[in-house]
This record gives sequence, structure tokens and C-alpha cells, in this order.
Amino acid sequence: MTEYPTALGASSLDKITLLGQDLARDVMGNVSFGELAFWLATQRRPSPGETRVFEAVLAALADHGFTPTAIVTRLTYLSAPDSVQGALAAGLLGGGSRFLGVTEDCGRFLHEVLSTVEDPEDEAGWDALALETVKARREAGKLIPGLGHHVHKQGDPRTPRLFEIAREEDLFGPHLSLFAAIGRVHPQVLGRTLPLNGAGVCGAALADLGLPLELLRGFALLARTAGLIGQLAEELRNPVANEIFLSVDLNNRSVPPEPSGG
Amino acid sequence: MTEYPTALGASSLDKITLLGQDLARDVMGNVSFGELAFWLATQRRPSPGETRVFEAVLAALADHGFTPTAIVTRLTYLSAPDSVQGALAAGLLGGGSRFLGVTEDCGRFLHEVLSTVEDPEDEAGWDALALETVKARREAGKLIPGLGHHVHKQGDPRTPRLFEIAREEDLFGPHLSLFAAIGRVHPQVLGRTLPLNGAGVCGAALADLGLPLELLRGFALLARTAGLIGQLAEELRNPVANEIFLSVDLNNRSVPPEPSGG
Amino acid sequence: MTEYPTALGASSLDKITLLGQDLARDVMGNVSFGELAFWLATQRRPSPGETRVFEAVLAALADHGFTPTAIVTRLTYLSAPDSVQGALAAGLLGGGSRFLGVTEDCGRFLHEVLSTVEDPEDEAGWDALALETVKARREAGKLIPGLGHHVHKQGDPRTPRLFEIAREEDLFGPHLSLFAAIGRVHPQVLGRTLPLNGAGVCGAALADLGLPLELLRGFALLARTAGLIGQLAEELRNPVANEIFLSVDLNNRSVPPEPSGG
Amino acid sequence: MTEYPTALGASSLDKITLLGQDLARDVMGNVSFGELAFWLATQRRPSPGETRVFEAVLAALADHGFTPTAIVTRLTYLSAPDSVQGALAAGLLGGGSRFLGVTEDCGRFLHEVLSTVEDPEDEAGWDALALETVKARREAGKLIPGLGHHVHKQGDPRTPRLFEIAREEDLFGPHLSLFAAIGRVHPQVLGRTLPLNGAGVCGAALADLGLPLELLRGFALLARTAGLIGQLAEELRNPVANEIFLSVDLNNRSVPPEPSGG
Repeated sequence: MTEYPTALGASSLDKITLLGQDLARDVMGNVSFGELAFWLATQRRPSPGETRVFEAVLAALADHGFTPTAIVTRLTYLSAPDSVQGALAAGLLGGGSRFLGVTEDCGRFLHEVLSTVEDPEDEAGWDALALETVKARREAGKLIPGLGHHVHKQGDPRTPRLFEIAREEDLFGPHLSLFAAIGRVHPQVLGRTLPLNGAGVCGAALADLGLPLELLRGFALLARTAGLIGQLAEELRNPVANEIFLSVDLNNRSVPPEPSGG
Repeated sequence: MTEYPTALGASSLDKITLLGQDLARDVMGNVSFGELAFWLATQRRPSPGETRVFEAVLAALADHGFTPTAIVTRLTYLSAPDSVQGALAAGLLGGGSRFLGVTEDCGRFLHEVLSTVEDPEDEAGWDALALETVKARREAGKLIPGLGHHVHKQGDPRTPRLFEIAREEDLFGPHLSLFAAIGRVHPQVLGRTLPLNGAGVCGAALADLGLPLELLRGFALLARTAGLIGQLAEELRNPVANEIFLSVDLNNRSVPPEPSGG
Repeated sequence: MTEYPTALGASSLDKITLLGQDLARDVMGNVSFGELAFWLATQRRPSPGETRVFEAVLAALADHGFTPTAIVTRLTYLSAPDSVQGALAAGLLGGGSRFLGVTEDCGRFLHEVLSTVEDPEDEAGWDALALETVKARREAGKLIPGLGHHVHKQGDPRTPRLFEIAREEDLFGPHLSLFAAIGRVHPQVLGRTLPLNGAGVCGAALADLGLPLELLRGFALLARTAGLIGQLAEELRNPVANEIFLSVDLNNRSVPPEPSGG
Repeated sequence: MTEYPTALGASSLDKITLLGQDLARDVMGNVSFGELAFWLATQRRPSPGETRVFEAVLAALADHGFTPTAIVTRLTYLSAPDSVQGALAAGLLGGGSRFLGVTEDCGRFLHEVLSTVEDPEDEAGWDALALETVKARREAGKLIPGLGHHVHKQGDPRTPRLFEIAREEDLFGPHLSLFAAIGRVHPQVLGRTLPLNGAGVCGAALADLGLPLELLRGFALLARTAGLIGQLAEELRNPVANEIFLSVDLNNRSVPPEPSGG
């Protein structure tokens, strides 16, 4: 008979374990939710400093107002109020390459660069590596994930703050170092100064925390789940979804079909 | 032009606010993720005690091993590894009436009872109300949400622990009081002793915290999102989804169609 | 070893069966998609007349322009263009109680009434049953599913057309008969004339076809899947999702949090 | 005021149009569901032959038994029976790169090759192009989408059947021609004979029909929606989801956490 091993939840008649701990005695009341989420993802308990950086990232990504994902959750709840799970799931499905993807793309990109070299020893070394990286990327005609922002053109306030928190906790590792260096040197190559954006710095910080790169998008989605619950709570008190729907539907203009060029 | 008011995220050229706070300066690094999730849902900052009870609930609900939702997330990731958001969303869609619904059902049920009476003043008063409630429910041929568990037949260890934490934080309110009283008196009516289950006590505690009843299921889903990321992380290290799939597919038995009785 | 019986797809080295048929030889090229969908749901092959009624229902429900589900699918695709499955799934999640639910509610409601009585023998009999039904419903303070429409106040053009098609195919059964009678008699009770809406008549027709009542919503979702693909195809040629997003986001008005009344 | 143009559904007081047609009069009862799905996606009405090829593709992809998507839909319904839309959406979310992706990958791949050359004039010409294509692909270390099958090692029965239907309808276009030629010549390059699989030939046929390449996966999902409704209908009559769940849960083996190598 096949067996399915797991270190996550398990229960017997009188006990529930989670990650090898006694859930009721050792986890409930003792482990914060951010700490637990980290622990579940890595199967090792984070230090208080790691938890603080991790939770700062989650805060940075939790809600950005009327994003497509927030609108989608509100419209889905309007349409199917019987299913809160459907409204949240629909919102999360917008967490793909374009809106939440930067976090993951940036973490993976930095990791890839770092996997090919020894970590530099000082800021000059990081700058040299960053310069080489930005040049190579430009020559390949590719953008740098995490560089640029359509609103915060003169700097995303989350970036220096996350740098600061990581430094306070002694968790300013190679991914953040390389990302910061890219921020310093890219004008030499690109000829203009772009902000290091918040989604990108979050990816760098998550990678420095040793979280699985394949799931960096997952942490953005965890943060966003809390944000989407906030959106639904606000929708319940002060509904706008129906007006959003009507603002589109009442302004539709029926046009004749134009066959696609098949 | 219609305007859409929101107290959640908003941003300008150099500032991002969330819940009226400066996100970078006041939230990141200062507000834990559990605290933030509570704040987003209620638009008021919880006390440390409220946060501790809330996070104990999230811990209690985060992961229960190979539940249908966990299996669904792993199978969806097997099938569509390009979309972490799809795998998480698919898992959350199992958070409906049967598996995660007890939390919400229990909170709503207790709230309904409480909305019709003054809160009793002492344990005897709670017991009297509970007795009346259980009798009425039994006469109506309905179950009590939160009573009974298919595994923890002699008591769900999460229940006394959450009672304890709520008492430590002085947050043992009317919903928990009524739930506890139901635990004491139901054997008089039902003729046997059933455990107060963990999902139910979580609903009672969330209702005592003043979280929106319509979204109690949402908090179970938030907790579960962290659990499902844990499931995906474990699947990446130690994959079992393909074996689960094959254990079903290889044991399929093709049978002739049997028309439904339309 | 547990076995999982199924009459749906199965395959061996050189053959694929579906519903007991040879898929390649007997189904592909011979069975239309509507016919196949019916067959899959009932495990019996529909007659050409049944297929025609079924497909008329699917046509009636496929697309209604910029509904919340259509907007959701377009916004999700904007946000996560890497995942067509996510965009379609997000749209379908709006197919709940409010927008697509009428079809199922109406079919179930009619079925419930019919399960308590013998089918009347003539129009007068149907009218009497309908009168009793509408009265009972009104006394219970409940609406009649399928009665009323916010746009087509003087009649939903789909309703007489589906009646006509069902009559042409000799498939005007008890659910449609009762629904039509409700249309004739309700003004006597309600004091005003409401239209029998298209979603409702579709539920009546699906119930007359003997399709499983628990899945009536499923057929609306099947129809809508085709519609949502149409929405995505149009979005690819003539994108509007970004404008919809901006029309909301640019008109957001940041307001201070107002604590919920926990 | 922004306007949102659409050629899909629109309605006024007494009329509903779809694709420029009168929905009730011209579409319902006259247009089959497969035909309508094609029309919605392309905004041009397909010929009967195009509809037949399209519906053959949908039949080929509708259901393959206990695939991960089918298991996911059944488990989600077990867990949340209140939400048919959630069960279907969860199943569709498995329609990603691995299981349903071949259809889209193959259509896109063939299209890419064809976009760089003139269509050959005869079978010898197609074989030459195919040979070049297979060689180039092999040199790049890449697989040919649509080539190979883990069960139908000596030939997927859907492939010759779809070739036949396309020829009967005079719709054997360049994508199918190149795909067929790849089937003939690849052994010269790869040194062994692999089957042209059904998912691949469907992608070739859809591309020849002029359907949008970005949405080829969407048509597989449409087909699968019908299949998943069939799975749910069977689950209602003959439930297996709980047994599948228990077969995993009861065979879980609790192991100690092993920290990921962060």
C-alpha cells in the first residue's frame, strides 16, 4: 500500500500535531501567524528577525487599493454572495505574471545571477557585479525585474524601508545586496534613474530568507488573501461593486462583429 | 463621475497609505501579519490580546494534513505547475459548507441565539440558555454546529486551549460562553457526550472578536492559504501528487453507462 | 484494493472509450458537442429533439454582454495573461446564486411543486395548480424564481421562443407547463404582470429534459464558458480591461477607516 | 465618458442580440452549441464542415477518465457541495501547461514554423519542411509538441480519425499537413517511431480552423467543462470522492519536518 509522508498536520484520537509540534499546546497562543506561515513553507522555525522581515514583506504586498484583483473579488461576491471562497479564489487568480509576478520574477532573477558567481565582499564588488548584470540584461534586450514603477517614479517608499528592516535584523543578504547595487549602478547603463520597486525588493528579501523560489508568488498571494478579505469587509459596509458593474454595462456600445483574421 | 471610496490601500507619487497609516513607516516592520489581517477586516487596530486570540484561531485552522483541499492543491499543481495561483485557488474552493464551513456556521448560530436575549450574568444563566438552545435545536431536528468530531471523539484538544487563551486575554465573550455552556449541558438533552470541535470554537472566538460574521469563512481560508503553501512546498521537496493520481487512475474500472432517471 | 468505477473516459493501448462508445470511431465526427454534453451528464444519448432544446438553452445563457462574470474574466486575463484557465475559472466563479442561479432555482422550485401532486390533465388544471402555487409562495413571503426581469419588463424574448421550440420537439413537459401557467395566472395574485424570464424558462426546460437538478447551474456555466471564451477573444482584438481597471482606480477616493461595529 | 464596445451580447427592452443576431429568433433553435462557441470566439459563423471538425476536437478532449482535473472537481464538490461553480472552476484550473497544454503548444508551434515559410505544394514538400523542423528542434534539445503518448504508444486512435474528418470536410490545412508530415518523417531523425497524439492533432486542427492561438487552451477547457459536469453527475449517482480522500488520508505517514535548504 502506498504511503504518503507529510510533516504537516496529522491527528490521532487525542492529539493534533503540526510540523512535529503539539498544535494546541505549542503552536496555538505561542506562534504568530506570520511565523507559522514561514515555518509551514520551510519546515524550520524562523527567528524573530526572520519573522519580522517576512511580515514586513507581507504588509508591503497585502493591498494596493482598487487593483484588478480587488475589483474581481468584489464583482464575484456581488454575483455569487453565497461563496466567499469563490470571491477570494477569483481575486487570487489575477495574481499572475503581470500584477503579482514581479516579486517572484525578481527573486528568481537575482538568484540566477548569484548562482553563477561567488558573493562579492564589499559594496564595490556588488556594484561591479550589478553593472555587469545590468549590461548583460540590456544587451539581451530584457528588462530588470523590480526596476521601475508607474506611480512611484522618484522612489517606492517600501524599498528603503525594507532595506532598513533587513539591516536591523542582520538579514541583508546577497539578494538584497545585489538588488541595492542595481539601484545604484543602473543609471550608468540605462542613462536614467528608475526606482527599485516594492514588489521587487520583496522578492529579494524573500529569497534572502531562504524561502522556496518556486513559491515566491505564493507569499504575495498569502498577503493578498488578507487584503482581499479587507476588500470584502469594506464591500459589505460600503458596497461599490454594483456601481462598477453598471459603469461598464451602461456604457457598453453594441458594435457589429468583426471576424478575426483566421 | 462616480467615485469609489476606500480606506484600504492608496498611493501617490511618494507615499503609500493603508488603513490611513503610512505603509512604509508605520505598518512595515511594526505590524504583524495577523494584526494586519484583523485590521484590514475590521478597519480598527486590534489590541495585542485580540491579535493573540486571532492568531491562535488561524493556527488552529491552517493545516489538517491530507484534506481534500490539500490534495486538490497538490493535484492542480501537478497538472498546471505554471500557475501557483491556480493551485492555491483550487484548494481554497474546497473551503465551503462541509469542510471549512463549521467555523462560520458556528459563529453565526451562536450570534443568532445571542441576538434574541440579554447575555446571562453567570454560568448558571449560560447553562440555562444553552439548555434551551440545544432543546430547541433538537426539536427542530437540527444539529448544533461545532458539536461532534469524527476523530477527536473524546475531546478536540484545540477547544480547551482556545478557551484558555481567550480567558488569559480577557476575551472570553458571550459567543465562547454560550459555546462552552453547550458543551456542559448537551448530554442532558442528547443523552451522550459529544466534543466541542476546534472549527466550532474558532467560530465562537472570531465572533467574540467582533469580526464580520459574513466573512468568518474567509478567516478559515486565510489560515488555509498558509497551509496550502506549506503543502506545495512539501510537494516540491517530496512529491506525492502523481502517485495519488495514479492510485486512482490505475484502479479505475470501466463500467457501462447507467442512464440517470430523467 | 479499492476500485473506482466510471462510465466516462477510459483508454487502453489502442482504444479510447467514452460512455461505452469507441471515442474515435463513434463519437468524433458523429456526435455534436451539445449532444455529447447532454450524454455525459445523463449517461444516455439524447434524441435530436432533446439536443435541440438543450442547445437552445445553452444559446440563451451563453453571453449577456458586460456582466460581472465577463468583466471578471477580462480583468483576470489583464492581470495574469499567462493563465487562460485562471481567467475562465475566475469568471465562472461569479456563476452563483445571484446571476446564474435563477436557472437552477427555477428548475428546482418547479420540480418541488410537481413532486407533491399528480400532473394536471389540461390547461385549466395547470392554471389551478399555478394559482395555488403562486398564492402559497406569496403567503410565505417568497418570490417566484423566474418571474420578473430588470430590463425586459414587457416580456423576455427568450421565453416564448423556448416554449415554441419545446413544443415543436414535443418536449413541453410538466415543468414548462407549470411555468407557463404561472405566467398566465400570477397577475390575479400579485396584481401586476411580470415577465417570465429567460433564465427561469431555461431551468424549466432543463428539468423537463430530465437533467440532474443539482447540476442545472452547471449547464448555465457550460454555456457561459463558451461566452467567456468569446469575451477573451474580443479582449484580445479590442482590449477594454485596462480602461475598466483605470476607470475604477483613478476614481478611488481615499477615506479614513471606519471601524466595523464589532 | 468611456464607452466599451462589444459585438457579443446586448439587450434592450424587447430584444436581445448576440453577435449581431436576434438571439431568440435567429440563434436559439437554429445554431448548435458547438457552432455558437466557434462563432463567439471568431465573430464569424462557421460552415457546417468547420463546425463538424471543431466539435470532433471538443469530443476528443472532453473527458479522459480519472485525470487530476476530474479528481479535483470531485474532491472539491465533496468539500463544498454548495458551490458547483467552485467545483468546476477548480477542475479547470488543472488545465495548464502539463495536462491540457499540449493542444495549445502544438498549435502555436506549427503556426510558428509556418509563419516563416511558404506553404509547400505537395507531400514531398511537407515532408522536407517537417524534416527540417524536427532536426532543428532536436538540435535545440527540444521536444516536438504533440509527439509521443504514455499509453497509446502505437498510435493514438484520435489522430487518424481527426485527419479523416478534416479531409472529408476539405479542412486539412497547413497545420494538419505539417503535423502529419512530422508523423511520417520523425523516425529518420529520432531513430524511433512515436505516435502523433490526440491533444496535438486537436491543436493542429483548431489552428487550421483559424481560431485564436492564444485561446487554443480555452477550447480544451470548454470541452473539459462538459466532461467535468459528467464527472459531477456520475459522482452524484455513484460517489467515489470520499473514498479517494480516505485512501490518501488514511495512508498518510507523519514524518518529522526536514528543513528546506534555505
